Formats: sequence, structure tokens, C-alpha cells
Amino acid sequence: MEVNSDMSRNYEALTPETLANRIAQIPVISQKVGGSPTKWKVKEVGDGNLNLVFILEGEENSIIIKQALPYVRLVGESWPLPLERAFFEYNALIRQQERDPGVVPKVYYFDRGQALIAMEYFHPHKILRGKFINGDKVEKLGETLGAHCARIAFRGSDLHMKTSQKKADVALFQGNVSLCGITEDLIFTDPYFQAEMNNHTEGLGTLVKQLRSDTEMKVQVQQMLQRFSTNTETMCHGDLHSGSIMCTNTETKVIDPEFGFYGPMGFDLGMLIANFLMAYLSQPAHRGKDELEDYQEWILDIIGIIFRTFCSEFATLWDKERTGILFPKKMFEDQGQSSQKGLENIFNHIGYDVIAVCGIEMHRRCLSLAHNADFELIENIKIRAKLEARNLMLGRELILNQKNLNAYKDIEKLARNYNEKDFL
Amino acid sequence: MEVNSDMSRNYEALTPETLANRIAQIPVISQKVGGSPTKWKVKEVGDGNLNLVFILEGEENSIIIKQALPYVRLVGESWPLPLERAFFEYNALIRQQERDPGVVPKVYYFDRGQALIAMEYFHPHKILRGKFINGDKVEKLGETLGAHCARIAFRGSDLHMKTSQKKADVALFQGNVSLCGITEDLIFTDPYFQAEMNNHTEGLGTLVKQLRSDTEMKVQVQQMLQRFSTNTETMCHGDLHSGSIMCTNTETKVIDPEFGFYGPMGFDLGMLIANFLMAYLSQPAHRGKDELEDYQEWILDIIGIIFRTFCSEFATLWDKERTGILFPKKMFEDQGQSSQKGLENIFNHIGYDVIAVCGIEMHRRCLSLAHNADFELIENIKIRAKLEARNLMLGRELILNQKNLNAYKDIEKLARNYNEKDFL
Repeated sequence: MEVNSDMSRNYEALTPETLANRIAQIPVISQKVGGSPTKWKVKEVGDGNLNLVFILEGEENSIIIKQALPYVRLVGESWPLPLERAFFEYNALIRQQERDPGVVPKVYYFDRGQALIAMEYFHPHKILRGKFINGDKVEKLGETLGAHCARIAFRGSDLHMKTSQKKADVALFQGNVSLCGITEDLIFTDPYFQAEMNNHTEGLGTLVKQLRSDTEMKVQVQQMLQRFSTNTETMCHGDLHSGSIMCTNTETKVIDPEFGFYGPMGFDLGMLIANFLMAYLSQPAHRGKDELEDYQEWILDIIGIIFRTFCSEFATLWDKERTGILFPKKMFEDQGQSSQKGLENIFNHIGYDVIAVCGIEMHRRCLSLAHNADFELIENIKIRAKLEARNLMLGRELILNQKNLNAYKDIEKLARNYNEKDFL
Repeated sequence: MEVNSDMSRNYEALTPETLANRIAQIPVISQKVGGSPTKWKVKEVGDGNLNLVFILEGEENSIIIKQALPYVRLVGESWPLPLERAFFEYNALIRQQERDPGVVPKVYYFDRGQALIAMEYFHPHKILRGKFINGDKVEKLGETLGAHCARIAFRGSDLHMKTSQKKADVALFQGNVSLCGITEDLIFTDPYFQAEMNNHTEGLGTLVKQLRSDTEMKVQVQQMLQRFSTNTETMCHGDLHSGSIMCTNTETKVIDPEFGFYGPMGFDLGMLIANFLMAYLSQPAHRGKDELEDYQEWILDIIGIIFRTFCSEFATLWDKERTGILFPKKMFEDQGQSSQKGLENIFNHIGYDVIAVCGIEMHRRCLSLAHNADFELIENIKIRAKLEARNLMLGRELILNQKNLNAYKDIEKLARNYNEKDFL
């Protein structure tokens, strides 16, 4: 892996036409891709909201070239966004690779000035969200994601890291101001007032009004925002929805951590579960009756597996890798005392954040700027509104009852319950 | 105010003999002090644990010259400590000055390479701890400290600051690794196992054993450490005990923020109250019966005033200066809704941290390295142990019942209660 920190050359966005020529000048990539650059194939595949993404196919390997644009792709040049986010994505990727090897793409090359990352191409992996919509199942999905969240949460925290290294990392990621700003606005704020870029499905107006007038709920949302903006417990992916996960039928990978930041341990898990719940609640529009129940139950099963694997892996790391300043063994095990109660309390504390983040993510995906294909692809507006209403009201229940619910046990039950309700 | 960032000259510790000559070469200070440097008077007055502190008296003004030493003064050269802490003290001082003008010393000059700060000399102010031991009262003590804690807490938080500025500040103070490390070790960890530098008064052995075997309490302590090391809610003084406060009979000033860091809003307040409680509990050894009750009640009164002023000032700022990303008016007041519940929840959340930090500070001052003169000056070991036992057990009660107590209401009652108890 090689890093080019030269910031003196002018940034230039890649195009399918210029890419091969430009990349050919970087030996480490040229060799990786293999063969003559004149024979390389280039395909632009960026379907996200922010960046350029190319598949570069050579004689020996296909790789991904991802380049940040100086604006939000979804909106256009009217919404500028610093190129520096590629720097944070690169930094998040190398840390994720170290903390849970093999789940995120290997980085081959990073060019800070060009905001460009060359990295491993996962194929024939497809975006998990599409699989949910198609009704595809993935083996070991819950196990991989649960263990990934546990390793990332634990190994990026003061439970494990040397405190000087942790503090340096926190300082570095405090620089990811713009992408944290997107989360602060689009997730935690815009859904709860008439923000300019908001949109929601026709027919939800009354319900949206009800949510925006629910002061108690909004206070809970803002308390979670305070935790988002001040709790540097661990390095989070920051955008772990089903569009940031790629799978074959047996393998699961995680991509796109440009929203990486040091935040609450439950943040990634909460957003992840929210996206599973939205997949679940949108299923009645995507499946016939004969497949519906089976597939919905499969989604809920995976949620359960994610939680159980998260807890068991986290507990293993608690025993084996607790080398940081928190809950030091000299205060517990070395005195013949158990630290188990500390672990339980941390699980509770993570659980509260999971529930709140989950509910808030469910809201913003129907109320704010960036909606989910799970709902957006439902052409019948009435059906879409009906299913989104369940989603909004389940989100509300989660946010309001954050401290009365057990994330690890209650979410499946609640999902089944709201899947039967009609709010319109 | 002038800053010298030249790091190329070799650091050299000042001495009373060399100080005038060296300082005379800095025009901004030379003019401030006034008159011929040959006539300047220099007195070393550092009674703290870490630094050199000189009073420099000239024809026009007396000022303080504070210089960090490359080791912990209390322990000696065997415990090195980075000079860089002067940089954090300087950065904390200028922020405190901006956030609550007039309470902390004005900085006249900062030299990063020499780890030297020239600042306002408060005289005839005396250290508050000495006043407690002498039985002196200070007018407006609670009002000044309560308002100071509120302004520092609010104006350094995401309730008020621009988020980009807040994140840059958090990043900067993450560099204060060594001084945060002292707190992490000496306050949150060492008291709870047989750490090398610990010491405690003869006769407390059984009780200390009992505390160190209290797993549930130690779990609470470690959860508070997690909040210390991960909750960047606001810029804290970091060491706000009664030795960091200087008073005349009518005026109160706050000094020495070299432990400055972005941490929990309740941290400073918790440490402050702990030091008031230690002053209170140690009084029976310092006062005759005729004065004792009156002076102890005065201390408790001040605690009450601190809390009430803190809350009223914080509430005022909540209404007038809530310009940050948290609880934005567009989500509440602009929609005709009250944000009062959010304020109440923040007070509760601050209250929990106040209680835990308070209890932990009370412990470390009798169990860890740096004890308080309030207890240390009690020559009769039996009386000292008896009073320290009350202090330790009250600390335990606070830590264990963190979530069942109301900081703002229950601490005075508990103090009176423990003041009557006998644990030995």
C-alpha cells in the first residue's frame, strides 16, 4: 500500500476516458491491475450520493478507483463538500482493516491531493439493499456483521487502545467536520422541522405533523445528537446502512466509511438495525404472500444473530484484549474480582444508543433528503405511505422508550407488532 | 497579549536569579512591569505540585511568571512530564477569559518553547483551601463559582459553539495526553488498587480494603472514567479544587487550568463540590465548638448557592445563547414548542456526573498520591482518620447511588448526615 501526500498538484476529477492514462502513471496500481493500460477497461459505477466510483479491469486484476467530488453528487455543484473526506475514508479503512481484517476493502493506494483511493474490488458481491428488495438470503450475514461491529467498537475504544493513540485518533477524525455535519443535519435535525431539502410520501402529512409536534420525542433525538457530537467512545463507520454492505450468497463485506468518526459504540449497530427494519417493513410491497412471511422472518432472524454475535464477540474481546485504561484488570481480575457487571453495564449503555439511533435513522429515511430504495421503489404511493407510516411510528416508539426497551430482546417483537398496524 | 511560538531555543528553567534578566528581554512584559529590571523583585511562590511560579514586582505592576518544569515537582525528576502542558494552560486560559471574562488571570505573554506564561497577579487574594482551614468567609463565593461553571460549561459546548470551532478545539485538547493521564491514573484508578504511589492515614486500612473490594462501586468509577475519557461535552478546567481558587473576602478568581480538556459538563462542578465537602468534613479538627457549626453551615450554604447559580445562569444562556447544533430553536421555539424538557434532562445528566466525580475526588484525596491540606494538616492521626473515614464513606455513597440522588438537593443533607457518623 502506498500513500501520496502531495497536495501541490491541482485536483482533477477522473473520467472514464482519462482514467487509464492517469492511473497508468502510478506503478503500484499499474502492476496490480496488470497488462497494457491501453487494454484496461473502465466502468463508472458510482450509485451513491457523493463520489465517483470506477471499476478498473486489467489483465490480472480488477480494482476500484474511488474519487471524491468537490460537491454532493446527489444534489450537484450547489452543495460543495470538501475533498478531504477521502482522507478520512482512507484513515477509516486502514483502521477497520486492522481491527477486523478481511471485511473491508484492502487499500492499494491513496492520493490525498486527488482525493483518490485505489482499493479491492469485491465481486460478484452486490449491495445488500438490493438483495433485500429481491428477496435474496445471505449465509453468515448476521455473524459477519455482528462480529464486525463488536471488533470495530471494542478495538477502537479506550477498552483496548493505548490512550495516547486513541486521543490522537480522536483528534484526527474531529477534522471530518463536513461529513459529521451532514449527519448532524440530515439525520438528527432536518426530519423534525420543515427543512428545505426534506421530502415525504404523499399521504403522510398528518403523521409527519404529529411527529414534528412531539416535543418529548424531539428532546430524546437531540440528546442522542449530543451523544453523537460528544461521545468519542470508538471509531464508527458512520454510515453503516444496507447500501454500505456488499454480499454474495455466502460472504459479507463492508464499504464506504467516509463518514468515519469517533462516536458512540452503539451508533453503527443502531443504523444497521434500522436498515434491516426498513427492509423488513417494506417487504409486503416486494414479496408475494407465499414468500413474504418466510423472508420477513429471515430478516428478523438476522437481527437476532447480529445482536447475539455482537455481544459474544465483544465479551470475548473484553476477556482477551482489555488492555486500555478502562476497567483495567488491576482493579478487578487481579484482585480476584469479576468485571462482568462492567461489561453488562456497557451492553446496556450501547443498547440505549442502538435503540435511539435506530429510531432516528428510520425517521430520516422517510422524512429528510436521502430516502431508501426499500421504500422508494414502491410505485403504489398508497402502499408506500402505509408501510412508511409503520416505519415512522416504530421509529417514534423506539426513540420515546429508549430507556424502557432492551435492544437485544425487544426489537424483533416490536417489528412484528408494527408490521400488522395501520396508521393511515 | 503576545505569543512566542519559537520552539528552536533550548528550554531553560527560570531561577529567581536569572528571571529578571531573561524577562527584561521581552518588551511586552518589561513595559507592563515597569521601571528598571535591576530594581525588579522576584519571589518564587509555587506551592503546587507541578510548576515554577514567580511573582515579578516592578515599578508599575506585579505579575505572575509561571513556567512548566519537565517533571512533576511534587515527585521529582524521576517522573517526567511534558512541558507542552503550558501550551494547554495558555489555550484554556484564553478560552476561559472569553467565556467568563474577569474570573481567570489575563495572559500577557506566552512562550511555547520556554513553557512560560506571564499573567495577571491576583493580590491580596489567597488560596481558598487556606481560607477554609482558617475559617475565613468569602462574599459572593458561590455566586461567582456557580456562574463561572455555567458559563464555561455552556459556552464551550455544542449548545453554543459553531461545530467546526468546537471540533477543532476538541482536537487541540486531545493533545493534553499527559495531564489527562494523571487524572485517569491518580483519580480514577490508583485509589482502587494498591498502586505504588498511594498512601493513606494510619487506621484506615480496614475501610480502604472494604472500598477496594466493592466491585459494584468500582464499576461505577470506571463508567465515570469512560465518560471522562470520551465525553467531549465542553472545555473543563480539569482541576477545579479549592487550591485552584483564589479569594479576597469579597472577590473570587480561578487559576491553573493546565489540566484543561474537553470533557463532561459536570466534571468541574463535581470536583469543586468534593473539595467543599472535604473542607466541611475536616472542620471539626480546625474549629472550636463555638465556631464550628456556623462555619460548617456556611460551607454548605455556599454549595447550595453554587448549584442554584449554576442552574439559573445555565438556563439564562440556554434561552439567550443557544446558537450551536444542539436543541436548535428551529426544532422547538420556532415551532411554538418549549425546549424546557431538554434543559431539565441536561441538568439531570450533569447532576449524575457531578455526583460521581464528587465521590471519586473525595476518595482519591485520601487514598492516592496528592492529598488535601484540609486533612493533611490535622496532626492528630486518630482525628484525621476519623474525619477521613466519613469522607471516604460519603464518597462511596455518592458513587453507588449516583442515579438515585439529586445532586442539586441531596448533597447538603448527606453531608450533615455523614458529619455525625463514626466508621472506625
